[in-house]
Amino acid sequence: MINACICTIGDEILIGQVVDTNSSHLATALEEAGLHVSRMLSIGDNKKDIRETLRRELRHNAVVITTGGLGPTKDDITKGVLARLSGSTRLVEHPGQLEVIRRILAGRGLDMLPSNQAQALVPEKAEVIINELGTAPIMVFRNLPGGGTLYALPGVPHEAVGAIPAVLEDIRGHQPLSHILHRSVMVYGLAESALAELIAPWEDALPADMHLAYLPHMLTGMRLRLSIYDCTPEEGEARIQKQLEGLQAILGDRIYSLEDSTLEKTLGEIFKAHGLTVSAAESCTGGEIAHLFTSVPGSSAYFLGSVTSYAIPVKERVLGVPSETIEKYGVVSSEVAAAMATGARTLMGSDYSVATTGLAGPSGDENNPVGTVWVGVSGPNGTQTARFLFKNDRKRNIERFSASALNFLRTFVLADLNN
Amino acid sequence: MINACICTIGDEILIGQVVDTNSSHLATALEEAGLHVSRMLSIGDNKKDIRETLRRELRHNAVVITTGGLGPTKDDITKGVLARLSGSTRLVEHPGQLEVIRRILAGRGLDMLPSNQAQALVPEKAEVIINELGTAPIMVFRNLPGGGTLYALPGVPHEAVGAIPAVLEDIRGHQPLSHILHRSVMVYGLAESALAELIAPWEDALPADMHLAYLPHMLTGMRLRLSIYDCTPEEGEARIQKQLEGLQAILGDRIYSLEDSTLEKTLGEIFKAHGLTVSAAESCTGGEIAHLFTSVPGSSAYFLGSVTSYAIPVKERVLGVPSETIEKYGVVSSEVAAAMATGARTLMGSDYSVATTGLAGPSGDENNPVGTVWVGVSGPNGTQTARFLFKNDRKRNIERFSASALNFLRTFVLADLNN
Repeated sequence: MINACICTIGDEILIGQVVDTNSSHLATALEEAGLHVSRMLSIGDNKKDIRETLRRELRHNAVVITTGGLGPTKDDITKGVLARLSGSTRLVEHPGQLEVIRRILAGRGLDMLPSNQAQALVPEKAEVIINELGTAPIMVFRNLPGGGTLYALPGVPHEAVGAIPAVLEDIRGHQPLSHILHRSVMVYGLAESALAELIAPWEDALPADMHLAYLPHMLTGMRLRLSIYDCTPEEGEARIQKQLEGLQAILGDRIYSLEDSTLEKTLGEIFKAHGLTVSAAESCTGGEIAHLFTSVPGSSAYFLGSVTSYAIPVKERVLGVPSETIEKYGVVSSEVAAAMATGARTLMGSDYSVATTGLAGPSGDENNPVGTVWVGVSGPNGTQTARFLFKNDRKRNIERFSASALNFLRTFVLADLNN
Repeated sequence: MINACICTIGDEILIGQVVDTNSSHLATALEEAGLHVSRMLSIGDNKKDIRETLRRELRHNAVVITTGGLGPTKDDITKGVLARLSGSTRLVEHPGQLEVIRRILAGRGLDMLPSNQAQALVPEKAEVIINELGTAPIMVFRNLPGGGTLYALPGVPHEAVGAIPAVLEDIRGHQPLSHILHRSVMVYGLAESALAELIAPWEDALPADMHLAYLPHMLTGMRLRLSIYDCTPEEGEARIQKQLEGLQAILGDRIYSLEDSTLEKTLGEIFKAHGLTVSAAESCTGGEIAHLFTSVPGSSAYFLGSVTSYAIPVKERVLGVPSETIEKYGVVSSEVAAAMATGARTLMGSDYSVATTGLAGPSGDENNPVGTVWVGVSGPNGTQTARFLFKNDRKRNIERFSASALNFLRTFVLADLNN
């Protein structure tokens, strides 16, 4: 495998001002393309440190990717070090990138300053991949001391992430990578250990050239990634497909997607495909479910709206939850979750609805421990409720409550559709 | 200044499965305590790489902090390398940590397995700081080759963050750190360059031993951090206070807090202090404002609820926005924002309300570019609206819309309170 190193440059990361998310995106992409990320590091805007670090990493890695250190104010440091590493300190102007800089400044109604123009200057031995999303060009240096290739990417996250496809294409064009094929399967509702136990016989019977990875994520559940190395795409697809059928037979509707997805996106696809609409009534999740639904572009086609009923009078007046129900069963109860769900459905005129009432923390009440949530779902064929208990802090409880509510709604809707 | 290196150990970070947030938390804490973080790095669960990396970093840094590599399954690798570095590979059981392990397993209803018990084994030259939050102890190795001290922390984020105070106390107890005092000022509504220009005369007149840092954050605006080195706490506090008064005279109500805070927390404090209540009506922000309000513990004291009115009929039926207003002015308009705000206030019976209607993306409409939002706020003395335009993607537009709405509401409420 080809070794790669990811290096972020910039004091802002070292003082903790910025969380580095670029490295994680790059690492995922490189790993999925079949490279081995040997290390990631962050260094400051310091000439000596940049030079020594890059020299060392180029001895151990065929590919080094840097992000950051290329803004209009710090340009000279990183770019100067890279120029010297490449063997020539002469800078030349890149007309294509200059044109992008001009366009971006014009769009913001700004004049071109010398510091902007200087961003189009690149070391003469650099190849340029034009950065359409920002002012700093993506630079490629080949045959550096040690023999490796260095890709210098801007530090702005959407520019760095935007550069990934072009970088991967360039890597593929210059060195033979092992053919690798990945397929993701999204699973919800099983802890990692329980899932592992359940699918152990299937996993143990996987062919030797297939690899299974568990990629847990609190909000999306578990992403199982099945990879196959060194085979043709057609043959690989067919062989993976066969294994996935075995997995589906074991896991059934615990699998919510056969591609990398989220619960809210999967639900949206179901609603759109069947011309259905949905609404929500939220107490303890406080708007997070509505936020998840509406984070999906095009969600206005099926998401009608929601009520966050934090105060009891809002549950009664807006959602029509009978005050006797609240008095008799308590706010955190199956009965109130059901009444909220039917109330939202009636109020919004949607086909389906989902409701939450619970205790996210920091404290519980006399009847329910902190981390308790009752979820209610309602549709044309009736109403159901379920209780979940999590042991996280307030923020994470809100996230997990929301994910369980979406998953409960998903199985409820699917049961209707399959009948 | 004392140099420090932060090193995360674990394959899961190198393949991009996990975003490393520990390093950023540690870097902030070390920097605020007066250390200089020279580099951060991530390496895999690989003996040789761990050993060589730690040896090298100990030559350049007086303090090295590792996180991760200490779970029950990978224990042997990192712990073995650290034991060899310390000069003795003998492991001894730490009774205090064993007791914590026993308590944690009992709380989960689990039996003690040999792999659990092994977590209480530490190299004999390690000092232990008991980790009350997890099973892996925090280990301190002093006088390693190169002379430095190494702190080995668990990788689980809340355990690593939980270990920071004890680590800082230990560092302070063993090496003289410069006295350093920080104060944060939260500013909203000014881009970094505009803010810098506005406060340039004040900044230029700061005494030489005071340092100003700009710490921008999309959601909270700008955190200005004023630091003073090497003076007594009392003297430092008084001198910083005097400078802050000068800053307040320039920035006025653009400053929303004189400590590290968020808009939703600051608003909550205002509402609580004056016994006021609030509600929201959200279109384009889709629940995010409710989510921000309710993310603050104790928010049920002032946040009554909200309506996410994504579909037009919900705006009309639930919030009572007249259909003629929508027809005449369009959904994204000052008039609809105002009607949504008054509608929410009437429906929920709150003192104040905030409403949003706009286009988060991916596309705009015939009258408004993508990124347009109208915010309406309503209270006992009337209703106001404001228009904002951002140029981000959908996710970020939703975040910025929400932050501007909260800030607009803040200035609106403060104007009432000051009259």
